[in-house]
Amino acid sequence: MEEQIDSVGKAFVDHYYHLFDTDRPALSSLYQPTSMLTFEGQKIQGVDDITSKLNQLPFDRCRHVISTIDSQPASVTGGIVVFVSGSIQLPGENHPLQFSQMFHLSPTLQGNLFVLNDMFRLNY
Amino acid sequence: MEEQIDSVGKAFVDHYYHLFDTDRPALSSLYQPTSMLTFEGQKIQGVDDITSKLNQLPFDRCRHVISTIDSQPASVTGGIVVFVSGSIQLPGENHPLQFSQMFHLSPTLQGNLFVLNDMFRLNY
Repeated sequence: MEEQIDSVGKAFVDHYYHLFDTDRPALSSLYQPTSMLTFEGQKIQGVDDITSKLNQLPFDRCRHVISTIDSQPASVTGGIVVFVSGSIQLPGENHPLQFSQMFHLSPTLQGNLFVLNDMFRLNY
Repeated sequence: MEEQIDSVGKAFVDHYYHLFDTDRPALSSLYQPTSMLTFEGQKIQGVDDITSKLNQLPFDRCRHVISTIDSQPASVTGGIVVFVSGSIQLPGENHPLQFSQMFHLSPTLQGNLFVLNDMFRLNY
């Protein structure tokens, strides 16, 4: 069970940042109308507004490098919390930016996981 | 509602790190047998083992300084996710250590919040 949680968390993280770096609009598939994103303190709710925010970030391309992934079951109902640290390389910047991000993945009625909670912070 | 979530998250964070810095054994009051802690990648479960881990960290005193607190409702059942960044000043160290930590607070049957999920990482 514990290994399964780690595998699901890692698979999600790999998928999420791969989409972010190569096909950012496709991230919309991971959110639902009830999803919440807090991005550097800014609160955004719902798949449409979250997708808009992510697509309007002031850089076209970036590359995430993941340092750590921690995952735990969030409840008996099949949710998972995933805690990520890593860095983002932005175009034209010499040094990558360190970040931390947490996701609370929750099952849909169909049993697929979606991002219910998403909180992102750069680390200064 | 949104302001209330922020207030609850901030009150929890103030309480948690105050206990950590001044009366670490009392942190046991915030965990339950179902609680999980992942501390720098080490997985620990249950109030007893979590309390032991926190009390056996290799420093007696420390001082947390909180930089950011983000909070969101985690579900319709009254849970909250709290995402913290800050620094820890350890005795005898010139420079504080940067850290990120996330908590998933879940209501007990009596309606009090306890720490169901806790993940801690130093930021390098």
